[in-house]
Amino acid sequence: MSSIVRADGRATDQLREITIERGWSAHAEGSALISFGGTKVLCTASFTNGVPRWLTGKGKGWVTAEYAMLPRATNSRNDRESVKGRIGGRTHEISRLIGRALRAVVDTKALGENTIVIDCDVLQADGGTRTAAITGAYVALADAIEWGREKKFIGKNSKPLLDSVAAVSVGIIDGEPMLDLAYVEDVRAETDMNVVVTGRGLFVEVQGTAEGAPFDKRELDALLDLGVAGCADLKDLQLKALDPSTGSGIQR
Amino acid sequence: MSSIVRADGRATDQLREITIERGWSAHAEGSALISFGGTKVLCTASFTNGVPRWLTGKGKGWVTAEYAMLPRATNSRNDRESVKGRIGGRTHEISRLIGRALRAVVDTKALGENTIVIDCDVLQADGGTRTAAITGAYVALADAIEWGREKKFIGKNSKPLLDSVAAVSVGIIDGEPMLDLAYVEDVRAETDMNVVVTGRGLFVEVQGTAEGAPFDKRELDALLDLGVAGCADLKDLQLKALDPSTGSGIQR
Amino acid sequence: MSSIVRADGRATDQLREITIERGWSAHAEGSALISFGGTKVLCTASFTNGVPRWLTGKGKGWVTAEYAMLPRATNSRNDRESVKGRIGGRTHEISRLIGRALRAVVDTKALGENTIVIDCDVLQADGGTRTAAITGAYVALADAIEWGREKKFIGKNSKPLLDSVAAVSVGIIDGEPMLDLAYVEDVRAETDMNVVVTGRGLFVEVQGTAEGAPFDKRELDALLDLGVAGCADLKDLQLKALDPSTGSGIQR
Amino acid sequence: MSSIVRADGRATDQLREITIERGWSAHAEGSALISFGGTKVLCTASFTNGVPRWLTGKGKGWVTAEYAMLPRATNSRNDRESVKGRIGGRTHEISRLIGRALRAVVDTKALGENTIVIDCDVLQADGGTRTAAITGAYVALADAIEWGREKKFIGKNSKPLLDSVAAVSVGIIDGEPMLDLAYVEDVRAETDMNVVVTGRGLFVEVQGTAEGAPFDKRELDALLDLGVAGCADLKDLQLKALDPSTGSGIQR
Amino acid sequence: MSSIVRADGRATDQLREITIERGWSAHAEGSALISFGGTKVLCTASFTNGVPRWLTGKGKGWVTAEYAMLPRATNSRNDRESVKGRIGGRTHEISRLIGRALRAVVDTKALGENTIVIDCDVLQADGGTRTAAITGAYVALADAIEWGREKKFIGKNSKPLLDSVAAVSVGIIDGEPMLDLAYVEDVRAETDMNVVVTGRGLFVEVQGTAEGAPFDKRELDALLDLGVAGCADLKDLQLKALDPSTGSGIQR
Amino acid sequence: MSSIVRADGRATDQLREITIERGWSAHAEGSALISFGGTKVLCTASFTNGVPRWLTGKGKGWVTAEYAMLPRATNSRNDRESVKGRIGGRTHEISRLIGRALRAVVDTKALGENTIVIDCDVLQADGGTRTAAITGAYVALADAIEWGREKKFIGKNSKPLLDSVAAVSVGIIDGEPMLDLAYVEDVRAETDMNVVVTGRGLFVEVQGTAEGAPFDKRELDALLDLGVAGCADLKDLQLKALDPSTGSGIQR
Repeated sequence: MSSIVRADGRATDQLREITIERGWSAHAEGSALISFGGTKVLCTASFTNGVPRWLTGKGKGWVTAEYAMLPRATNSRNDRESVKGRIGGRTHEISRLIGRALRAVVDTKALGENTIVIDCDVLQADGGTRTAAITGAYVALADAIEWGREKKFIGKNSKPLLDSVAAVSVGIIDGEPMLDLAYVEDVRAETDMNVVVTGRGLFVEVQGTAEGAPFDKRELDALLDLGVAGCADLKDLQLKALDPSTGSGIQR
Repeated sequence: MSSIVRADGRATDQLREITIERGWSAHAEGSALISFGGTKVLCTASFTNGVPRWLTGKGKGWVTAEYAMLPRATNSRNDRESVKGRIGGRTHEISRLIGRALRAVVDTKALGENTIVIDCDVLQADGGTRTAAITGAYVALADAIEWGREKKFIGKNSKPLLDSVAAVSVGIIDGEPMLDLAYVEDVRAETDMNVVVTGRGLFVEVQGTAEGAPFDKRELDALLDLGVAGCADLKDLQLKALDPSTGSGIQR
Repeated sequence: MSSIVRADGRATDQLREITIERGWSAHAEGSALISFGGTKVLCTASFTNGVPRWLTGKGKGWVTAEYAMLPRATNSRNDRESVKGRIGGRTHEISRLIGRALRAVVDTKALGENTIVIDCDVLQADGGTRTAAITGAYVALADAIEWGREKKFIGKNSKPLLDSVAAVSVGIIDGEPMLDLAYVEDVRAETDMNVVVTGRGLFVEVQGTAEGAPFDKRELDALLDLGVAGCADLKDLQLKALDPSTGSGIQR
Repeated sequence: MSSIVRADGRATDQLREITIERGWSAHAEGSALISFGGTKVLCTASFTNGVPRWLTGKGKGWVTAEYAMLPRATNSRNDRESVKGRIGGRTHEISRLIGRALRAVVDTKALGENTIVIDCDVLQADGGTRTAAITGAYVALADAIEWGREKKFIGKNSKPLLDSVAAVSVGIIDGEPMLDLAYVEDVRAETDMNVVVTGRGLFVEVQGTAEGAPFDKRELDALLDLGVAGCADLKDLQLKALDPSTGSGIQR
Repeated sequence: MSSIVRADGRATDQLREITIERGWSAHAEGSALISFGGTKVLCTASFTNGVPRWLTGKGKGWVTAEYAMLPRATNSRNDRESVKGRIGGRTHEISRLIGRALRAVVDTKALGENTIVIDCDVLQADGGTRTAAITGAYVALADAIEWGREKKFIGKNSKPLLDSVAAVSVGIIDGEPMLDLAYVEDVRAETDMNVVVTGRGLFVEVQGTAEGAPFDKRELDALLDLGVAGCADLKDLQLKALDPSTGSGIQR
Repeated sequence: MSSIVRADGRATDQLREITIERGWSAHAEGSALISFGGTKVLCTASFTNGVPRWLTGKGKGWVTAEYAMLPRATNSRNDRESVKGRIGGRTHEISRLIGRALRAVVDTKALGENTIVIDCDVLQADGGTRTAAITGAYVALADAIEWGREKKFIGKNSKPLLDSVAAVSVGIIDGEPMLDLAYVEDVRAETDMNVVVTGRGLFVEVQGTAEGAPFDKRELDALLDLGVAGCADLKDLQLKALDPSTGSGIQR
């Protein structure tokens, strides 16, 4: 990588400091308070035996996610979506992204007729909230599944988790590809991309957007390489956070 | 007080463990993460120079508050009010209570044409969320006012804070008045009361409700006494949390 | 009480002229058009055999209330909440208060699996709308219960009404405690309190708010005394309005 | 007309008992509580100096209307539109009809840049609520205009009222055209029509609907004749309700 | 008729060019893209076996309609009702009118327990959108019923269509009654009327409104005559559009 | 490419039949009815002189887009979002995507303080509605800009269009990468990707999602190659649709 040093002293291919407080919530079946530098997201997984009516009797479970931001998570205050009476497009979009990312590593047949709702609430925002949310949500999800197994809602030999999943943002700033953008970097990026990658290194989701000038294949490839490497580092942190003795519930 | 010992080992007139993490938020002008036992509320105060249009030109400031709960703050998950598209009556009621409690100790003339919005988001709930919110909100408010003074939005000699304010719940369980009810106590209480008291020991708000049988004047008096004593303890904790060298912004 | 004479010539401990037109509505199972001076509230009670799904099979009934104001009940016109598409916090708060007040005197087991919905619509407002609503709602409720008994939805020996209930506002103006505030008094009150009291003189709800300066225990006691005495007068008027020969449905 | 006698003893061309309590509201600039038999509608007219922004500077006034029903105005309770969060099609349709009917007799130039909002709230419903609303709204409107003249918001020589306006329902039941249908008649009508007619006997609005079989021109003519005659009777009652000495504000 | 020539060269009693593209939609059970001059409305009929819960078990079907306009159907862009979060009064009113018009020619017993939802979406507007919608909706409805018969959801001998139905606008401009008003005519009309007429020439709905001065019986009669004649022409075009060999499903 | 033949006879790298009816709307400043096989989208561009308040005075224009689907565009009917009172996440997501895609080729400085709102309404859906919408929207946009230039809202020498833009879907079915998926293909795709590419062949947006198994870099590359080639074909069709003599407004 290049010898450029970023505002916070990081190398271009370096993650911010990542912390994962597993089991933060006293009530949820799985939870994690994750931080990517100044970005802090509380992820809870709520396990319910049973599925929505439209899935009943199909022998399959359901995993869904909701994302939201506290009004003063950001530098200036945003009105609450509950007060506005409607959810914004950005919120919808990110909630859907998180749900898809998690479902990509869940075998819903093995989950049985159980529902897991993931809530990702951004307590403080400094760029990369959706990728922190996905990365933390995986930890909460793994614990909720373990909880379901202990409560015998999930069969002893069922392995609902096919793999782990993590996400990170990458972007091009002043022509230079960089990993895990903080807010001040994000607003300057010409191209902005989020990659969601499984523990085995396969893509679940690739979303790249030209914020400034359109980008070419070479730039796209550089960003993808950075993102895949970043997600591999995140995977290690996720596995460390999950108690190794329980095997973290991932099917191998 | 009686020799009854409560489920968590407290005396009837004893608060739960109270912690106040002042300045939790990197962005807000004032903030505190307060816990009353298992109840955790993030309080932020957002300072804006200027007032809503209906107040413009009257030489007065404005303080308002919004309360909300994360969906999995409670033992089972509640749907988000943003998703339901409407704010429930309980949320409205508590938001209004917090705003009134804070305005009771603010001299809006001394505040000048500035607006402070307090957000109280319950991250985890175990009874007494509204009283924890008021108690923590005061700390956030004091810091936001101090911030406004430093930024010269508030005059050097203005003293917008007339007093401090704290709140606590009290209730009668099995005929016994008790201070600071945890959730398991709250659901069993025959009478439930919230008292909001200033640092000088005066009432700002008294809200008592017969959940079971109606109550008489003697019971009401016992509850009020407990509440006033509890708020005095909370005042000490608030002042300790606020940096004494800055004088915490309270007018004396 | 003091020798102060109020704007409308009343003594400080005197109610405004109270009228109760029982059975105003041709359709409702119970109804009353109540006036506290210039405040006029139409209270209807709608009786339905059966309960909401979440209560089914528990052998208990349900009583709930909704409060609203006509757009030109007040001195200047307010936009309709139906047009705004959302119910304001004040409306929610008062609806919940009325429901709690009525449920405090209802034995839901004795009511059986029946639902009574109370609607309190303010046709004209001059202060004390919520207390007039509670006082009138009790009359409508008593008649609806009587109707249910006649139709055999309620057992012959069941006594769903444990007591009567009434409410009145009290406040401190220029340092003087006063009963049943008219609007011009209400806006000047330093402390404003609503008390809900049963026919036997016990408290169901006490809600006191410092609108101006915080208040002390002595002031609180003076207000409570005034309120209890006012509610006793209102009880007499309620019983007079209800046909004595039917026994008004109250359990004795 | 035929010798048929209706359920309530009326002749086919006879109105129900009509009462108009002019000035019912203590607050509104004009008001009337009108009853057509068991149908009772409270009509208030709120006068504001000034017009909505889109009309500003055009030298013209604005008259608009809103119609609503109390939840227990009808035989069984309807959920509040404020609670449902949306206004139903029927409510919208009737509000628009009332507004058009009143604007047809108002010279908005003569009204000057003033706004009059008419609220018609059905307190009790027994058929013909929209026609009672229009008929009562005219009385409220006339008084509000008189109020505006007294307050000098309307010029001394301006005559904003071009004519009076009234409305009535007509319908065919068992092949027989009938005037002013009560609810039990309305549900049986094969054809249902509302006619809005000025004091001079001209049509402002004709709305006829085949509820059962389609109708022919002869039936339509019979209904129109009945409606015009009924509106002439209503005009007399309106003028009687309005104080003759003030001239009722109608331009002659 | 008069020798007046209109802006587009038509005689006062002449329809605009009418085209009906039957079966425009690949998915709907019945559909028609209808144009009245520059007004283009896409009408689809969606057939579902079964009825809403409130109709279940009564042996009757249900026909309902929804009307809407694309945001740039008109000369200047209107905000979407989905974005505003509420449906306007005009939309509600027209949807209800279309539904009533179609139900007037449907024998719901013969339809059996089937539901047909008609959607009328205005792609381009130039006056008369509601009348074009009704006229086109009939064609879509007839085809959907035919589809239901082929699929055996409707019995072989059942004749759910009692008659055809069409609609047209008429109005008085400069004192002259005119048929099928284009937008530039509509805004100038003193009186505006929509008539809905069956194939046999009977009225289903008559809605006349004085936009300027009130109108008299003679004018009303002239408009009705024009409208009935216009609907007779539209009936011929409808029948031509519907494949004559299938008999168009109308009961004779 | 492979020799696989698809359900509709296409080669794997072949677009469906594409038609672009430029200028479909009589009212909009730019418009196109575009079809990708059975997918038909009406795109209109509404030009307004001036910008939203938050942009005023910055010398820049604004381009935004809204996407929606008629209720019966699909195989079974969907409830209208206007009736549901809220816009779904998918609608929001696609509207935002279209807006970003168009803004990527617009020089908002050169556009001047003008606003262009693009509406993309799906009249009939058969897969790829968002990519058809982007491709058609560009044509409507180009014409609206030309209109603005003719009306002198845009300076004679300003070149607001930096490039053209088109979009297409690609996916992997049975392990085979395919271009421009029809609905029956879309539901079977393991990986689904939408690519938005400028006329010069650069990426504006890349959105790939693993619907089934996660995908690797080799598959991603194959899809990107297909998408870029498809967009090049679409560019040719766009330029052909736009009148070559006007130069289509693109800056070269």
